[in-house]
Amino acid sequence: MYRVSVLQFEPKLGDVTFNLGQIRQLLSTLESDLVVLPELCLSGYVFNHSNEIEAQDPETSEVFSDLKTLSREKDSSIVLGFAERSGDKLFNSSALINPDGSLKVYRKTHLFYREKLFFNPGDTGFFVAEAKGGIKIGMMICFDWQFPESMRTLSLLGAQIVCHPSNLVMPWCQEAMKTRSLENRVFSITANRIGTEANGAQSEYFTGQSQILGHKGEILIRLATDSEELATVLINPNLALDKSVSPFNDVLADRRPEFYKLS
Amino acid sequence: MYRVSVLQFEPKLGDVTFNLGQIRQLLSTLESDLVVLPELCLSGYVFNHSNEIEAQDPETSEVFSDLKTLSREKDSSIVLGFAERSGDKLFNSSALINPDGSLKVYRKTHLFYREKLFFNPGDTGFFVAEAKGGIKIGMMICFDWQFPESMRTLSLLGAQIVCHPSNLVMPWCQEAMKTRSLENRVFSITANRIGTEANGAQSEYFTGQSQILGHKGEILIRLATDSEELATVLINPNLALDKSVSPFNDVLADRRPEFYKLS
Repeated sequence: MYRVSVLQFEPKLGDVTFNLGQIRQLLSTLESDLVVLPELCLSGYVFNHSNEIEAQDPETSEVFSDLKTLSREKDSSIVLGFAERSGDKLFNSSALINPDGSLKVYRKTHLFYREKLFFNPGDTGFFVAEAKGGIKIGMMICFDWQFPESMRTLSLLGAQIVCHPSNLVMPWCQEAMKTRSLENRVFSITANRIGTEANGAQSEYFTGQSQILGHKGEILIRLATDSEELATVLINPNLALDKSVSPFNDVLADRRPEFYKLS
Repeated sequence: MYRVSVLQFEPKLGDVTFNLGQIRQLLSTLESDLVVLPELCLSGYVFNHSNEIEAQDPETSEVFSDLKTLSREKDSSIVLGFAERSGDKLFNSSALINPDGSLKVYRKTHLFYREKLFFNPGDTGFFVAEAKGGIKIGMMICFDWQFPESMRTLSLLGAQIVCHPSNLVMPWCQEAMKTRSLENRVFSITANRIGTEANGAQSEYFTGQSQILGHKGEILIRLATDSEELATVLINPNLALDKSVSPFNDVLADRRPEFYKLS
């Protein structure tokens, strides 16, 4: 069995030191193999200017050195959303940090709303990487859920667990993710933030209800709308290798791409 | 505004005459622009041998002459699922019959369970056709729902309403269709049958709960699990032409096919 966790909390806009401290404190009791944190959880979300964005270069950032130390200390893979600086470009990214020090970065493919003012569209595409124990995980970020192609691509690549850092402001995602897990027969971990973040005329309310779903879309755990919580469930990730829905049907092998329109 | 209807009933296995009579009687009060009936609603569903399947060639079948007459008399487009004979092949098909006598046939792309023993995999692919009033509709049948590519393809082709004749035996479809409508911003009409059909050692219980969903996945009407019902709602199909989710986002234009894996 494999322990998977989700952390739901309220980052403070523009205060990376505070947010890293919160993460350290909230994960102090963590006993898990894989924990997922929200989108942009080091920087906050509601920006008016790109110069407000405290972005990290994961290769050189001290914050990432600290996160690697945390992953090693807790002996847990960590997936978290962060603002990434790469040269003069900013991306809305997600990092997989493993206890062995290895790191993979996914850059959000589908930017939502005013993110388009500040971030470049992701250029990594979807990929699968190994988390602790060799379990194959995929990453997608928040609004990527709206597009079935995101999680489908990760599933075709072999993802057993989809890690989904989020800052959700619309009402649909948590329920729709049941269909995402079900249609692909993969586990999903949506880590959403909580609270209302205001910055000048801009303000967003985030819906919490972070969740871990089974490979048939069943809710294994769903958190409250407004409380800081760390939750852990035990899963068997190998269930995601079985794509059968009947003795005659397999949700991936039964696909007929010759009849699917891609664009 | 446009009147759309769904008919839920219990066909009798192997009795096309009876089933056609039922359809005539149940539609006697119909006042609508488009009505959707269940999958295989002329033949029944639970077969043991292909010679039990009363299949129709829509070009020559008297049953289809009668259905065309019914469509003209009621001045309503009719979508229904039927067993199609084409030469020596059988397909699990859906017909769109318009009051002007025009007819289009879709052949089910993704066969479910023991259907694979009797029917050929559909070879028409997904397409869009005009129903009464020039409204663009797409057809998919039952288990096609499991594959997001089905309804996505219809949406990319311009469908405003997806007509979905079904014989549902698993517990997931009705809820998952909310995601299908939401992710594509199209209306959907799932017409499911009711009852338990037994044939020798084979038996299936069908879950009813036929439904009409709005373009944000909201339930406009959902029927009971076990009663014969004809229901009609008024919709504005042009809402399905608006794919915006925020001032910066459009669920089709925001797609990035260069990052999507098709096979």
